[in-house]
Amino acid sequence: MTSAPILSPSETDLPEVYQSVESEVRSYCRGWPTVMDHAQGSHITDVDGRQYLDFFAGAGALNYGHNNPVLKSALIDYLTNDRIVHSLDIATAAKTDFLTTFEELILKPRGLDYKVQFPGPTGANAVEAALKLARKVTGRESIINFTNAFHGMTLGALSVTGNSMKRAGAGIPLVHATPMPYDNYFDGVTEDFHWFERVLDDSGGGLNRPAAVIVETVQGEGGVNVARVEWLQALAALCRTRDILLIVDDVQMGCGRTGPFFSFEVAGIKPDIVTLSKSISGYGLPMALTLFRSELDVWAPGEHNGTFRGHNPAFVTATKALETYWRTDEFNKETMSKGEFVRTRLDSIAGSHEGVSARGRGMVQALKFEDAPAANAVCGVAFERGLLAETSGPSDEVVKLLPPLTTSNADLDAGLDILAEAVAATLA
Amino acid sequence: MTSAPILSPSETDLPEVYQSVESEVRSYCRGWPTVMDHAQGSHITDVDGRQYLDFFAGAGALNYGHNNPVLKSALIDYLTNDRIVHSLDIATAAKTDFLTTFEELILKPRGLDYKVQFPGPTGANAVEAALKLARKVTGRESIINFTNAFHGMTLGALSVTGNSMKRAGAGIPLVHATPMPYDNYFDGVTEDFHWFERVLDDSGGGLNRPAAVIVETVQGEGGVNVARVEWLQALAALCRTRDILLIVDDVQMGCGRTGPFFSFEVAGIKPDIVTLSKSISGYGLPMALTLFRSELDVWAPGEHNGTFRGHNPAFVTATKALETYWRTDEFNKETMSKGEFVRTRLDSIAGSHEGVSARGRGMVQALKFEDAPAANAVCGVAFERGLLAETSGPSDEVVKLLPPLTTSNADLDAGLDILAEAVAATLA
Amino acid sequence: MTSAPILSPSETDLPEVYQSVESEVRSYCRGWPTVMDHAQGSHITDVDGRQYLDFFAGAGALNYGHNNPVLKSALIDYLTNDRIVHSLDIATAAKTDFLTTFEELILKPRGLDYKVQFPGPTGANAVEAALKLARKVTGRESIINFTNAFHGMTLGALSVTGNSMKRAGAGIPLVHATPMPYDNYFDGVTEDFHWFERVLDDSGGGLNRPAAVIVETVQGEGGVNVARVEWLQALAALCRTRDILLIVDDVQMGCGRTGPFFSFEVAGIKPDIVTLSKSISGYGLPMALTLFRSELDVWAPGEHNGTFRGHNPAFVTATKALETYWRTDEFNKETMSKGEFVRTRLDSIAGSHEGVSARGRGMVQALKFEDAPAANAVCGVAFERGLLAETSGPSDEVVKLLPPLTTSNADLDAGLDILAEAVAATLA
Amino acid sequence: MTSAPILSPSETDLPEVYQSVESEVRSYCRGWPTVMDHAQGSHITDVDGRQYLDFFAGAGALNYGHNNPVLKSALIDYLTNDRIVHSLDIATAAKTDFLTTFEELILKPRGLDYKVQFPGPTGANAVEAALKLARKVTGRESIINFTNAFHGMTLGALSVTGNSMKRAGAGIPLVHATPMPYDNYFDGVTEDFHWFERVLDDSGGGLNRPAAVIVETVQGEGGVNVARVEWLQALAALCRTRDILLIVDDVQMGCGRTGPFFSFEVAGIKPDIVTLSKSISGYGLPMALTLFRSELDVWAPGEHNGTFRGHNPAFVTATKALETYWRTDEFNKETMSKGEFVRTRLDSIAGSHEGVSARGRGMVQALKFEDAPAANAVCGVAFERGLLAETSGPSDEVVKLLPPLTTSNADLDAGLDILAEAVAATLA
Repeated sequence: MTSAPILSPSETDLPEVYQSVESEVRSYCRGWPTVMDHAQGSHITDVDGRQYLDFFAGAGALNYGHNNPVLKSALIDYLTNDRIVHSLDIATAAKTDFLTTFEELILKPRGLDYKVQFPGPTGANAVEAALKLARKVTGRESIINFTNAFHGMTLGALSVTGNSMKRAGAGIPLVHATPMPYDNYFDGVTEDFHWFERVLDDSGGGLNRPAAVIVETVQGEGGVNVARVEWLQALAALCRTRDILLIVDDVQMGCGRTGPFFSFEVAGIKPDIVTLSKSISGYGLPMALTLFRSELDVWAPGEHNGTFRGHNPAFVTATKALETYWRTDEFNKETMSKGEFVRTRLDSIAGSHEGVSARGRGMVQALKFEDAPAANAVCGVAFERGLLAETSGPSDEVVKLLPPLTTSNADLDAGLDILAEAVAATLA
Repeated sequence: MTSAPILSPSETDLPEVYQSVESEVRSYCRGWPTVMDHAQGSHITDVDGRQYLDFFAGAGALNYGHNNPVLKSALIDYLTNDRIVHSLDIATAAKTDFLTTFEELILKPRGLDYKVQFPGPTGANAVEAALKLARKVTGRESIINFTNAFHGMTLGALSVTGNSMKRAGAGIPLVHATPMPYDNYFDGVTEDFHWFERVLDDSGGGLNRPAAVIVETVQGEGGVNVARVEWLQALAALCRTRDILLIVDDVQMGCGRTGPFFSFEVAGIKPDIVTLSKSISGYGLPMALTLFRSELDVWAPGEHNGTFRGHNPAFVTATKALETYWRTDEFNKETMSKGEFVRTRLDSIAGSHEGVSARGRGMVQALKFEDAPAANAVCGVAFERGLLAETSGPSDEVVKLLPPLTTSNADLDAGLDILAEAVAATLA
Repeated sequence: MTSAPILSPSETDLPEVYQSVESEVRSYCRGWPTVMDHAQGSHITDVDGRQYLDFFAGAGALNYGHNNPVLKSALIDYLTNDRIVHSLDIATAAKTDFLTTFEELILKPRGLDYKVQFPGPTGANAVEAALKLARKVTGRESIINFTNAFHGMTLGALSVTGNSMKRAGAGIPLVHATPMPYDNYFDGVTEDFHWFERVLDDSGGGLNRPAAVIVETVQGEGGVNVARVEWLQALAALCRTRDILLIVDDVQMGCGRTGPFFSFEVAGIKPDIVTLSKSISGYGLPMALTLFRSELDVWAPGEHNGTFRGHNPAFVTATKALETYWRTDEFNKETMSKGEFVRTRLDSIAGSHEGVSARGRGMVQALKFEDAPAANAVCGVAFERGLLAETSGPSDEVVKLLPPLTTSNADLDAGLDILAEAVAATLA
Repeated sequence: MTSAPILSPSETDLPEVYQSVESEVRSYCRGWPTVMDHAQGSHITDVDGRQYLDFFAGAGALNYGHNNPVLKSALIDYLTNDRIVHSLDIATAAKTDFLTTFEELILKPRGLDYKVQFPGPTGANAVEAALKLARKVTGRESIINFTNAFHGMTLGALSVTGNSMKRAGAGIPLVHATPMPYDNYFDGVTEDFHWFERVLDDSGGGLNRPAAVIVETVQGEGGVNVARVEWLQALAALCRTRDILLIVDDVQMGCGRTGPFFSFEVAGIKPDIVTLSKSISGYGLPMALTLFRSELDVWAPGEHNGTFRGHNPAFVTATKALETYWRTDEFNKETMSKGEFVRTRLDSIAGSHEGVSARGRGMVQALKFEDAPAANAVCGVAFERGLLAETSGPSDEVVKLLPPLTTSNADLDAGLDILAEAVAATLA
């Protein structure tokens, strides 16, 4: 999310109102300086009719592609019939459907006894609610986060986020969070959790006893850092034995991005709290959930609220997406298979160039460049050739691919061709 | 937002999934225990076909009514044609239209040289961005808020919110904010700003020098407390002479709720920063804006971001709402006129009962009950008779009316009839 | 303590080592640029043999005068006999004597069921311990302090101090404290505690519920602001009815400065926690106490500690001072009588000049100058004529007199003659 | 300081006033339940005439022994002649002497261009001033401390202290400090500074950029953890290259405890800021210094102050101690030699028992017991046999020896005999 390639000269191609009226905080439009208009599946078309293959997918918010026809049909039907759109947390037929479907297709089959909170329609809201609940349940203030974590931009979420530029934007010292090294932070040299476990168990360690640990199973914004299954299992065990809550932030990696619906399923763990957003509505509509073990449901009515908790069009598309893609294990298998295909091609690209390596899990795959600026340059060339892909990582050194999970093999191939050319052109 | 009437017994009328799966944090569905399904203008229909007059309007998010046909047509047209839905802050045709229209119809005619930030789609996001910017610009941390303020539930927004139950939910001490008495906090006995000005100018006062003051011109959640025009003017002058930024949180009172587009227009002041959300999309779709004087636009690209900043369906309905209602001053005049009508009837109800008084501005009007529990009881009776209205205020002692601005005089009359009956039945 | 008169040119009269080696943080030596050497009672003599009448008395640390002969004899006797000097909180004969005497002569006669903590030898230590204990007992974080309060320079003590220059020195935002207006802050116009009570009882007031209120009965550094007896009583009642602890910081005003041993005795209140330091040793030796109701003694052994808690020479002089001055009520009466004498003369000086007023209680008396810089100028002239007196108040607008309580009437008269001349010379 | 052995039954041997009047926070008197009265050199005598060898020395405040005769003579002479005792930061002859002597004998010979601040008379005051200055100079808030650090009990000092019981005593979340692993925290397995350097240089690491690192060269309270010379050098280099200030807290290890005057001399480093207290007065009198490179002297006059900054009796004994012990390198050499002697005997004791190891530098030496409770038991037996020694370390698993540096070889031998017996008796 940090880092569409910056090609400032061409930003002047945008309508003047972007520079005269929109704040300097705008970013993606600087690297992709064109006005988008139509979108279907994995394709976007700009106002001049130019087509782009979208391997960015709304930073993971469009796992089922743009304007997915099955979801679209349900959505237009709902709107056409004047069914209720905005309802806060009043019960609605659309909400009943969503809750019922989510329980039946997602929670029950996975043995997850979770309560569902609608915390407001963004990932940051879901994270804020998760942190509040963890603190309320434990009576402790401190949270453990990980190096290069990204959890959102509101004050609570930002305090557990790693990026120093974004942290500085807070304008106040961000406290109550302590970073620990993410898996493989030392390139495998140091034993896992050596520092974390030691300081936690040392009564003189100086670490405030944490309420919770918040973790992404794959750090998307942090550079597509993939935690090993055994690391996640060890983390879950460490939390359990020390009475610390485990929060998995599945905002970007959930909803099938890595294969299974929840990214942590691969490790066989059951987090205490889980956050979902981005692709949960399936149509790019704002929606978010905070899930937690039912014993943790100590909220008082209205203790956390928000105007857009009841965004019914999102419930409608979310329900339809669950019904369409998650009745069976088929979609998971397809994603894994497509992910392997992408990875094979990335390995091949990496193998052809010095200082380039591939990484990822499922359909979040990436190329890391030892020469960090090359990543941005590759994305710039890719954009010119009709492919949207963004960089991530602390030095923007990683080209991150998040194609819609519904992308056809042919489109994957075509996009990877462009990428391979862009890499070759950049490193030539 | 705090306080739909609690009629716990009937909550069991809801489908079982609300109790088995949704978190205890749910609130409105407890007081209005039915499943809503259709909605048009000022009317909602539940799944059993029962109709309700809606004087709640999504807590102010539906100023133009449910499923406003003009907006609906534009929305369905946009979706049908597969135009881009989710775009982060990539330029889109729908965004260009919105920015252009907002500048032409809202900013320019009012002489407001504001930059527009899309901070994420909720009021809390808009407030978080406002606070960050104020701190970044001034290099100070402290914010002045007011008694009974409500600004949102994320950590930054919550720290400037008054409600003690919601504050306690944070689980950490909320710091960097100091409350000051809102207008008329002492029932007119104490001189305005006596304390605030004195402690600010006293080098030994012990108040951390504030970056900004954040204020609502009418406190909706706080109990429909209406700041006088001269108080707002004095506050603006106080901030200006002491180099403190003035943030007006117009999330609930903006978009015409009090008559003019911005609620502060009546005072002739120009805040440094303004937040908008709720009714800005016009259709109940999540959207929010943070506006600020262009000199304050010190954001670095991407320093504040968020996945749902580019919710194009909301841009489409927002643009259509501006074009439909804000080309002339007519809508403002109608709102003022309707507000007077509502107020006259409320004054009449208040005049008929001991311990009841009316308050409000434009189309946010309210009845305050000296016997606080009566307010909740009134809302309960009103619901049974087909009217949705919620309570607000620190003791839920105020029945707050936020009918859609487009409500017909006949519907206003009908709703007020129900309210009058409910008051009479309750106080009898 | 803020503000010996600044006569920078003559600072060059000091030995060079003060400028080359001592930090710029030094302050009193700038206004009184001479090297002091001997001292007896209310007189100090510099290395050149020049005598000064001392109406400053170590900022209140020398209530019994310099090198009080009775105390001196006990001290030298103790040291000569190789009795233990440094003992942390090991029991010593000198400590037993002090505890026994303090209980017998101070606590019991006043009906104060206090436990005694030795928190480290400075007032700031005593305040830090008081705040910790109040937070531990109540489980709350927030403290209410008052405008123009001074409680010390360590981080906890500084957070409840008003002075903006000193607060800025912290280098971090000072949080967890909220200032309230001290008595007469609005020159009697506003009703007492109007704001404090209202915001405390308002569940939407936005004030974090306080653990404790910390107050000085007379604000010395703050400008010799004297709280009325009825204000102190009302404050105590307000705390009691709302379950908030009342801390009286008697570091400067205790040990007889205002007449009785504790300055709060005049109001007939019993604070929950009391801090003492400055004159408790009686000889200018570092020592401090934190006293609290025995029910509040929830400390774990060693939970607060410090190397110099057991400064036995201070215990020896403290015991001797109690025995010498506090067996009867005589000393209190003398102080009150001397205070009246000083006040009469100050009133007379004030009566002779426009814009000068007198204030104080017991033997802390002061002249306030509407033209603030005049106060500093008066102190400068007084120094040249052989009188030490410092300024205080947020604008250094007050000449504060803290003569040793043992100062003879003749010396009081002589010092006040100098002061009268200095005022006349300054305002001429 | 944490942990005199707890022999609660015998506490009842103390005068009743300790239990009825002194707070439960008392600690040493619980483990050593007798009333001390006289003291000379390395010997203390209680009121019953029983003698104790003191290998505790006021937790390091009595490096030159109790009532050192050379210092005593100067002190009594000063007091007898009515020279000024209490002076805040007014210039005095005694202060001039101290500053001149400290510059001549300590700073100049070591090439240390330090300014001297008198921050108040305790180590915690010195640390508070150091942290404030580091924050003021850098404009950053965060401090790096180390596991098992101890820096004092006031809020600022406590926030950089490791002990969880003492931290909990704060009653508020302690923020703005992040612990890093001290040297050898992982028993040599992990490369030095691996984590610290990595997270510091990672723009996504999530660590707030620190103003300063605060470190003890040997952690006394933390369990006599000795940082290697190369670790200290690497730390200094790490700070220098990243523009982070290095604060050495030499409160316990300075004034010759490890041999040289400053404990960091052995590493050839020059910290930016140094704190001294405990033995600086040489006589157990409260006194403390904060030293810093002259370029860092950005204090405003009076920005940090305190009533007992000018404790002249302490200046007198401090000056005499410097003149007596630090004119030549002789004292350093003697301390090193005695330290080696003590270590040889401790190694021998350790060699005779399973699970016991020796550690230390200079004259801070210790025995660590794998079976933590044994350490406390050893100290209990030693007390009964006439030796004072305390435990330290997070589990009180270390018997720490801090004999006066002036202890004769015979007394060292006698004390170590008792210790050897106590170990044998305990582990038998």
